[in-house]
Amino acid sequence: MRREAVYHAASDPWIWPESLSRVRVRIRVGKGDVKSCRVGGSDRYVSFEENAIWTEAEKIATDDLFDWFEASLDVPSKRLQYQFRLETANGEVLLCGERGIGRSMRDAGVFQFAYLHESGLFQIPEWAGDAVVYQIFPDRFARGKSADDPVHAEPWSPDARPRPDSVYGGDLAGVIDKLPHLRDLGVNTIYFTPLFLSPSNHKYDTEDYFRIDPSFGDLRLFRELVDRAHRSGIRVILDAVFNHCGDRFFAFRDVLANGPRSRYKDWFFIDRFPVEQEPEPTYETFANGVTTMPKLRTEHPEVRRYLLNVARFWTETGIDGWRLDVANEVDHAFWREFRQTVKAVRADILIVGEIWHDAGEWLRGDRFDSVMNYPFRDCVVRFFAEGSIDAQTFDEQLCRIRMRHPEPVHRVMWNLIGSHDTERFLTLCGGDDRKMKLALLFLLTWQGVPMLYYGDEVGMQGGPDPDCRRPMIWDPEAQNRGLLEFVQRLIRLRNRLTPLRRGRVRTWHADRSSGIFAFIRKDESRAVGIVLNNGDQPRTVKLPVEPGIGPDVRDLLGGRRHTVTDGELSVDLGPYEGAVFEMA
Amino acid sequence: MRREAVYHAASDPWIWPESLSRVRVRIRVGKGDVKSCRVGGSDRYVSFEENAIWTEAEKIATDDLFDWFEASLDVPSKRLQYQFRLETANGEVLLCGERGIGRSMRDAGVFQFAYLHESGLFQIPEWAGDAVVYQIFPDRFARGKSADDPVHAEPWSPDARPRPDSVYGGDLAGVIDKLPHLRDLGVNTIYFTPLFLSPSNHKYDTEDYFRIDPSFGDLRLFRELVDRAHRSGIRVILDAVFNHCGDRFFAFRDVLANGPRSRYKDWFFIDRFPVEQEPEPTYETFANGVTTMPKLRTEHPEVRRYLLNVARFWTETGIDGWRLDVANEVDHAFWREFRQTVKAVRADILIVGEIWHDAGEWLRGDRFDSVMNYPFRDCVVRFFAEGSIDAQTFDEQLCRIRMRHPEPVHRVMWNLIGSHDTERFLTLCGGDDRKMKLALLFLLTWQGVPMLYYGDEVGMQGGPDPDCRRPMIWDPEAQNRGLLEFVQRLIRLRNRLTPLRRGRVRTWHADRSSGIFAFIRKDESRAVGIVLNNGDQPRTVKLPVEPGIGPDVRDLLGGRRHTVTDGELSVDLGPYEGAVFEMA
Repeated sequence: MRREAVYHAASDPWIWPESLSRVRVRIRVGKGDVKSCRVGGSDRYVSFEENAIWTEAEKIATDDLFDWFEASLDVPSKRLQYQFRLETANGEVLLCGERGIGRSMRDAGVFQFAYLHESGLFQIPEWAGDAVVYQIFPDRFARGKSADDPVHAEPWSPDARPRPDSVYGGDLAGVIDKLPHLRDLGVNTIYFTPLFLSPSNHKYDTEDYFRIDPSFGDLRLFRELVDRAHRSGIRVILDAVFNHCGDRFFAFRDVLANGPRSRYKDWFFIDRFPVEQEPEPTYETFANGVTTMPKLRTEHPEVRRYLLNVARFWTETGIDGWRLDVANEVDHAFWREFRQTVKAVRADILIVGEIWHDAGEWLRGDRFDSVMNYPFRDCVVRFFAEGSIDAQTFDEQLCRIRMRHPEPVHRVMWNLIGSHDTERFLTLCGGDDRKMKLALLFLLTWQGVPMLYYGDEVGMQGGPDPDCRRPMIWDPEAQNRGLLEFVQRLIRLRNRLTPLRRGRVRTWHADRSSGIFAFIRKDESRAVGIVLNNGDQPRTVKLPVEPGIGPDVRDLLGGRRHTVTDGELSVDLGPYEGAVFEMA
Repeated sequence: MRREAVYHAASDPWIWPESLSRVRVRIRVGKGDVKSCRVGGSDRYVSFEENAIWTEAEKIATDDLFDWFEASLDVPSKRLQYQFRLETANGEVLLCGERGIGRSMRDAGVFQFAYLHESGLFQIPEWAGDAVVYQIFPDRFARGKSADDPVHAEPWSPDARPRPDSVYGGDLAGVIDKLPHLRDLGVNTIYFTPLFLSPSNHKYDTEDYFRIDPSFGDLRLFRELVDRAHRSGIRVILDAVFNHCGDRFFAFRDVLANGPRSRYKDWFFIDRFPVEQEPEPTYETFANGVTTMPKLRTEHPEVRRYLLNVARFWTETGIDGWRLDVANEVDHAFWREFRQTVKAVRADILIVGEIWHDAGEWLRGDRFDSVMNYPFRDCVVRFFAEGSIDAQTFDEQLCRIRMRHPEPVHRVMWNLIGSHDTERFLTLCGGDDRKMKLALLFLLTWQGVPMLYYGDEVGMQGGPDPDCRRPMIWDPEAQNRGLLEFVQRLIRLRNRLTPLRRGRVRTWHADRSSGIFAFIRKDESRAVGIVLNNGDQPRTVKLPVEPGIGPDVRDLLGGRRHTVTDGELSVDLGPYEGAVFEMA
C-alpha cells in the first residue's frame, strides 16, 4: 500500500455530522491499494480498543490516482475518537489514525472529532436540492408590454450585438409578463443579476442599495414580481454586490468631495489623498483599476452594519435567497454575520457564493450553502463542447471536484454551463445543438442544482461579455424550438424522478476511447441510469445491471426499449445522443 | 514522481499571510521525488502565464514519507493566483495547480488565494514567543506564611501522597511569597489552574465565576498577586473553564430546584426531567457521568453572554492570557466571540487552548493563539523517557506535528513534558534525572514555548492524577538542586540566544541507531546547534558545519571546546548528555 497516498483529516470535507448523533467519515487511499476499509469509533473518554464499534466503509469514488471510501458512524455521546483499518490488496492490515499509519494502536493513534455541536450541522434549506435555477440579466430578458420604451434603448432583435454600454430596456414588468414562459419551461427559481440603482446596464456598480433601478421598476413592482413568481411556484434570488460599490454610492461621493475629512474615508481602501479617479484610481477597486467600482472595507464595523441592513431590508421583502458577488474577496467574518442576519429573518433562505475556484473553505456550514460551480462548467466545456478530454478523464475530473465537498454540499452546488460572465455554451459547441443537448442532459441529471442562463434554452449564442448578453429571443421563428422542448422534457424528468435530485451518484461506464459516459443516480428506493454518447459515431454499449432488471428497460427520453441479456443492458445511441433508464 | 504524494490546498496550513502584501506557501511531495520546487504568483486578474513571478522554494522538512517545501511570495495587489513547478529527480518538469498535476497550464490550473484581509493575519502577541511558562496548581504550590493553616489541610511534606479529595492549603499568598523562586528560575509566565470558587481541590467545577476561592484568597489579593508578578517581570494566565460548570453553579442549582420551570433549563443539556444526579446524571456532563460538572450549552445566547462577561471581568483585572479548558468541546462560534471580547479589552492578551490532538482547526488566527502541545509531549515521552523510538523516528514525528501548523503558530505552541493531567516526566524516566535533563534541554531549545509543570524543576515525581499533584517540595534538602540549577541555566541560555526563541528549526542529525539527535535553530543573524545523546553509552558524532565555523567551537552548556576539521564538528558526549553550540 502506498502510504503517501492516504489522506484523512478530522475536519471538513473528511468528516461531517449527518445529525446530532451520527457522522460521515471519508478517507482517500491510493487507487487499487485497499481491498476493504473499516472505520472504528468510540466515545472519546473510554478505551478505544475495548469499546470501538467497527463499520464497513464503502468505496464511493475513484479517479486516476485515488479511491475514496466513506462510512457513517453512530456517535451517541457526541464525542468521537475513530480509526481506519485498511486491508491492502495483498492482505496486510494497517491502522490509520492521527499519528500515522502503523500496525499498532500506539503507532497509528486515533483521530478525534471532539464534539458534535448543533451549530456544526449543515443547515441547507430543504428546497435547495429541488431547485432548477434560471439566471436573468434584467436589461436583456424582456421589456414589459405596459412600460414605455426607454429613450436610449437599442432595438430588441435576434440580430442585436451588445456593446459594453448598450441598454435594451428589459425590466421587471417584462419578467412578470414572461413568468408563463418560465413556468412552462419548468424552472422554479430565478436568480437576478443586480436590480439596484446603478448607472450601468449590468448594475454591479451600485449607486443605491435600497432602491430598485427605475429603468427596471420600483419597490412596489418588485414586491408584485416576488408575489407573482411565488404564486407560480418560482422562487426569487437577488445578487448581493458587497465586495465593492459604484462610484456614485453616497459614501464614496462623500470621500471624493471631502477627501481626508470625509467620515466615510475608512469605508474604502484609499491609497493616497486627494482621491482621484483619473488617470488611475488612487483607491482600491474591484479587479484592477475599475474606477467605477471602489472596493468596500467590509471589515469596518460601519460598512458591515450598513451592508447587513441592506441584506435585512431585502430579505424582509420575502425573497428566497442571495447570490453573493465576488464572494471570495470579502472577509470571512462578514459572511458569517451575513448568514446569521439573513437566516434570522428567514431560516430557509439560500446563500450561494460566486467563487470560481475550490470553494471548500466557504462551504463549511457557517458561511454559504452553495456556490456557482464553475469548476463543473470547466469539465463540461472540455468534454462536451470542445471534446478535448475523453470520458474517463471527464469522470476523474468530476470525481475530484465532488470529493472537495461533503455530500450534502455537493448535492446543492449550482452547476452551470454558462453565465453572463462566460461565452454561451452553444457558441462553444460551434452551434451544434446536439452537443448542447447532450450537455444539458448531463446538467439536468448529474448531482447538484442545474442553473440555466436565460436564452440557452432557445439556442441563443454569443461570445464573451458583452456578446453573451444579447437580448432574449422571444420570436418563436428565431427560437430553437427543438432545444426548448428538450429542456422542458429534461426538467419534467428531473422533477418526476427523485433520484435525479436526491440520489447519490456512481460512475457506470467511462473509458478513454468510446466517448460513452454513463452513471447511476440512486436514492433509497429507486435508481436511474444515464448513458451519454459524446461522439459523432453511433455506438452500442453494454452496461452491467443488477439482477432483477429487465428483460426490457425503457429509455425515458427516446421511448425506445432496450434489452437486458446475461445481466447486461445493451444500449444503441446515435451521435451525441443520450438515454435515461429507470431501474427498478 | 509519485503524484499521489503531492499535497497542497489553498488554505491554512498550506498558505498563510505574512503581512498585508506577502504570503508563505507550503507544499508536500514524496520524499526524494522533487529536486527543486518553484512557486509562481501573479495578481488574479491578469494572465498568469504572462505575469507570474517565480520564486525558488526551500526544502524545510522531511519525514519518512514526504518532503515539504516553502516559499514566500509578494502579493502587492492582495489577490494571488499561484502554481508550483516541480522538477523531479529525473529532470521532468511538472506543474501543480488546483486542477491537478500536469504538463500544461490547462491541465494543472492555478491555486487561488482570493484576497489578503487584515483579519486573515495571525495576530499573536509579540511576547508570546519569548514566554517560558510555569504551571501552578494552587492548592499544591505554596501555603502563604501570613495565612492561617486551613482546617482540613493535610501535612505539606515531600512524602505526601494526595488522594482525589486531598486539600493541602496552597494559596495566592503562597504564590506571592514564592515569586522570588520563579524569578530566580527564570520563568516569565504563570499559568494557574482554576482560582474561582469551587468545592474541589482542582476547582474545575466552578461554583462562582466571579469570585476567587476563599481558600486561595480574594479579589484584592489576586490583584496584588498580578501586580507583584508583573513587577517581577512575570505574566499571569488564568484557566477558563467554560465547557462545563460545577453543580453548585447558581444556574444549575436553579435547574435542580425548579426542573422544567427553571429559566436556566436551556443553559444545559437535560436528557429528561426530573433532573437527577444519582444514580446517573440525567443531564450531559463533562466526560462520562461526572455528576459535578454539568456541560454548558455555549451555543445558547444567554450562556454565551454570561461567560463572555466572566472573560471580560477577569481580563479587565490586567491578566495576560487565558488557557481554555476542554477547548475542543466548546463550539467554534463561542471561541471566535471570546477572542473578539478579550482582545478588545487588551490587544496583546494570549489565548491558549487545551487540545490534546491535532488542533489545526482552532489555530487559524480567529480562535486561539496557541494550544498545549500534547502531541509534542507524546514524542518526548517515547524518545527520552521510554526510549521506545529511535532518533530518526523522533525527528519524523516532530516534523509531522510541525507541518500541521503554519510557522507563526508553531513558534508559540506550548510545548510540555507534563501537566496536572499526566504522570510526572521524571517518574516516566524511572527517576533517572539524566534523561529528565536531556528532555528539558530539548524542551528549552526546540521551537515553541516551553511550559514547566511546578516542581519538575526540583525533581518531583508522581504517577497519574492525583499522584502528579503532590505538594511542592520547598525543603532544599529534598530538592534535586542539580536539576534546578540545570533548568536555570537552560532558561538563561534561551533568554540570551534569540535563535532559541525565534529561530527556524532544521534537523542536523538523526539516525536509527546511535541515539544522537541534533538540530539547528537559526534566525536572521545567528545559529545555535543542539546535540543530544539519548543513549546510555558515550558517543562521538561528526556534524557538518558551514564554512567559517571553527576551528574551535565552545559548548555553551558544558563549557568544553570542540574541534571543527574538514567542515565537520566532532562532538563527544557522555550518556544522556547534550551540548549547545553558538555558530557564528
